[in-house]
This record gives sequence, C-alpha cells and structure tokens, in this order.
Amino acid sequence: MKELEINTDLVRGILSGFIRSETKRAGFEKVVMGVSGGVDSALSLYLSVESLGGENVLAVRMPYETSSQDSLDHADMVIKATGAQSTTIPITEMADGLIDQFPDMSNVRRGNIMARCRMIVLYDQSVAFNGLVVGTGNKTESLLGYTTLYGDSACAFNPIGDLYKTQVRQLAKAMGIPDVIIGKAPTADLWAGQSDEGELGFTYAEVDKLLYRLVDERYTAEECVDAGFPREFVVEVIARIRRFHFKRIMPSVAKVSNRTVGYDFLYLRDWGT
Amino acid sequence: MKELEINTDLVRGILSGFIRSETKRAGFEKVVMGVSGGVDSALSLYLSVESLGGENVLAVRMPYETSSQDSLDHADMVIKATGAQSTTIPITEMADGLIDQFPDMSNVRRGNIMARCRMIVLYDQSVAFNGLVVGTGNKTESLLGYTTLYGDSACAFNPIGDLYKTQVRQLAKAMGIPDVIIGKAPTADLWAGQSDEGELGFTYAEVDKLLYRLVDERYTAEECVDAGFPREFVVEVIARIRRFHFKRIMPSVAKVSNRTVGYDFLYLRDWGT
Repeated sequence: MKELEINTDLVRGILSGFIRSETKRAGFEKVVMGVSGGVDSALSLYLSVESLGGENVLAVRMPYETSSQDSLDHADMVIKATGAQSTTIPITEMADGLIDQFPDMSNVRRGNIMARCRMIVLYDQSVAFNGLVVGTGNKTESLLGYTTLYGDSACAFNPIGDLYKTQVRQLAKAMGIPDVIIGKAPTADLWAGQSDEGELGFTYAEVDKLLYRLVDERYTAEECVDAGFPREFVVEVIARIRRFHFKRIMPSVAKVSNRTVGYDFLYLRDWGT
Repeated sequence: MKELEINTDLVRGILSGFIRSETKRAGFEKVVMGVSGGVDSALSLYLSVESLGGENVLAVRMPYETSSQDSLDHADMVIKATGAQSTTIPITEMADGLIDQFPDMSNVRRGNIMARCRMIVLYDQSVAFNGLVVGTGNKTESLLGYTTLYGDSACAFNPIGDLYKTQVRQLAKAMGIPDVIIGKAPTADLWAGQSDEGELGFTYAEVDKLLYRLVDERYTAEECVDAGFPREFVVEVIARIRRFHFKRIMPSVAKVSNRTVGYDFLYLRDWGT
C-alpha cells in the first residue's frame, strides 16, 4: 500500500536526530539496547550508532537456553556491521529461578518472565554503561498489544515506535541491514518454533494496511469493510487494540487531592522555580 | 500540618470504590499484591480486602535472603488480620542469577534488581491467580522519584498513589493497622540497615509539608522559603521532582506519522466502532 511508504532519507534523519536529542536532553551520551537478531532491534541499533557512534552504543545479547542459534548469529551480524560495543548476558539462571518454582507454567508465562528478565538486564547495564535504554518495539506491536508490559516495551525512549512493521522493513532495507534479517519470519523466540504471525493469526503486511486505515486515517469499522477488509478481521483487530490499551498508558491512580500525578501534575511546564 | 489531614471515612470509601470499579472495569474479580511488612502495602491490602473480600485478594511475600525477619513477620501480621489469600515466593535465586554475574555491583543495582524481580513474580501470579496487580506506592515516593522504574511502581492501578506518606499513616491508623507497622522506620529492606529517611536525608513528615505546598498548593520556591522552609531543602526537593519526572510518564516515541501512540492516540474515545 502506497500510504505506508515512507521517505526513508527523511525518516532516517528524524530518528537519528531524535536519538541524539533525547539522549542529550537527559544528560547522557550513551545508550544501551537489547539486540535479538530480529529486524526491529537491528534497526534501533543502526539508527543509534549512526546517531551517537559505535563507541557510545552497547548492544546486549541476552540468550535463554532455548534461544535459537540463528538469533544469536544474526545479533552478532548486526553488532559487527555497526561496530557497536557489545556484551552477552544469559538470562537462563534468572528466569529459571522463578520458572523452576512453577514447573507446569504455560509458555506464555515463561515468555513473559524472559521478556521481563531482559528488561532487568538492560536497566542494570544502563547503570553499568551509563547509557539510556533505547526501545526496539514498533507501532504494529504496540497497537496490537503484542508486547510484554514492563518487558520488551520498557525503555527510556523509542525511535521506531511510530513505524509500522512494514515501515521498519522499508527503512531497514534503506539502511543496508542484511536481507536475511529483514526477510526471516518475525519471532519473539520465546519458545522453539514460535512465530509472531502464527500466534497472531495474520501477517504484518495485512494488519499494517488495516491499522493504517483505522488509526492514522481514522476510518470506522464500516469504512474498513467497505474498503475491502474482511469484517471478522476488522472486528478482531479493533478488539485487540481496545483490550490491550492498558499497556500503552500509565497505571490509573485514585484521585483524592488537588493535584495528582498522571492527571493534573504532568508536564512541569509551570515550574519556573 | 492541618492541610495534609484527610477525612479518613471519605477517603476510605473513595479508595475502596476505586479498587472495585477498576477491577470490574477490566473484567476481573480478583487482585494480587506484594506485601512487604511496611505500612504502604498494608494499607493497599486492607483497602483491597475491604473492597473485594479476602478470598479475592492474593498477598504475596517475596523475601530475598537478606530480608529481615521483622519484615516477614509484619507481612504475616497483616495477612492474618485481613484474611487475605497468601503465598510466599522467594526471589533469591532469580535475583542472584544476575547479581552473581557481576559480584561487585553496587547496593543500588542490587536493590533495583530485587524490586524488578518482585514485579516479575507479581505479574506472573497475576496470571496464575487471575487477578490484577494492585500498586502500593504513595505520592511522596512518586514525586521524589524514590521508586524503581518497572519495579515497585509497576501495577494495573494504584489506590494509594495520591496519598502522601503522612496521609497513608493517618488512614492506616483509622483502619486499625497495627501501630508497630505504622510506627517503624520506613525501609525498602533492600539491604540490612537501609532506611528511606536515611537515604533521602530528610523525614517524610518534613518533606510532605513541602511537597504539599509545591504541588497541591502551587507555591513557587520563593513562596516556600518565605513560608519558612530552608532554601537548600526547597532547591533539593524541586531538583528531585524534576530529575525523576521520567519515572512518572510513558517513554517518548519519535513522532513521524499522523497519529502516534502516546501523543494523539490516547483515549480511544472516538472509537464508536
């Protein structure tokens, strides 16, 4: 779909500039990020190195014992290509410290534990390396709620959070990220054989077209059906966006005072103090 | 200070109602929370049990090997007093799975890892018990940034997040929480001998008075000094509020589209679909 196409030169410049200004604004010079071997984290890494230089970027590989060798190899590939600093910190012992207490837990519970252990490692490395944690989640995942709250969605700022998966791939190609990484089936690699599109039940290419209509173009459900999207698909995607809205906002707080964090104490704009 | 005094009957009713409506609204009947033995989590527990009944509330004790016996005993005391469901899930093996990889890390790094491991346990128990995670952080901590991001501040909703520590104590007393819990020195119990007030360098009673002026009453720094607060104290507290503002908001996203999560895709109000 034409509308999803981005001007890659323009967006690349905006996102590099965003990384630079967010990092400086917070008083930092360096950043830290998880690199999984997938295209999203590869793109965040390429943009960060372009923006700050390889010596100021720490790429962290965080394998669990069942992580695929492909994932690790692809992570290495982009680390070498960018010249970023890197380290490998396995999460197996951390995650198993909880999983072993509930050996019959579901794959989803295991997966969420792993995603959150990786958050812990990144925030700990953030202190050790003195860098901010850069996000690697895209707009498609965010809208579909296909993320682990306080896990892979946790970051100081996110350069690619307003790009649909289709646009991540387009920009990744323009920046020279290897085709093997752009072309492989997206997976959170939380258990063997997991694929995003298998779990979701539709492809990113399909859903991005619908999300663009619903969100960016503000189509109603009926207008999407009229535009040719199957009604069931439209209903299911809208339900997902609604159901997981809580992952995109701060927790609610019971308001009992004149000025409450998250309601009327928000921006610190009126703090001339 | 009179202004910090709350009408405990009124606030108690509002907070119980908040817990009930937030839980229902999300399609749940049950909640899960960490119970540390301190007054904040005790108050959240009492309010939750009052709101939903003890059978619908899971209180989770999550000791690390250095946690004090007092903390565990006080947690037991409030669990027994309320009749909540309870379980004990140690975090030692999880936390040490990372700490042992960096044996010379600082106490602050260790403490953050522990706080985040507890978040993982609570969100995992949220699935196992089919309950929402209730927050236990107060307004003083939130404003001072004296929390671990994605750790103790992580929750589905927070009934006590708009109460200053002073007000937490007042409501705790009115609800019959034992004096030994209300009166003891507040501590995150992340290492032996840690006390909040020792780390912060001032007492909650002092800082609450200042925060109330600055935030709720919108005093400027000069007006606070005129009202009798030491200038250094005012400057330091304002700096803390500013420095840790990032913990109170969602991560920033580079805006490149018509409608961006966190900017102009916020409330789903216009989704009549």
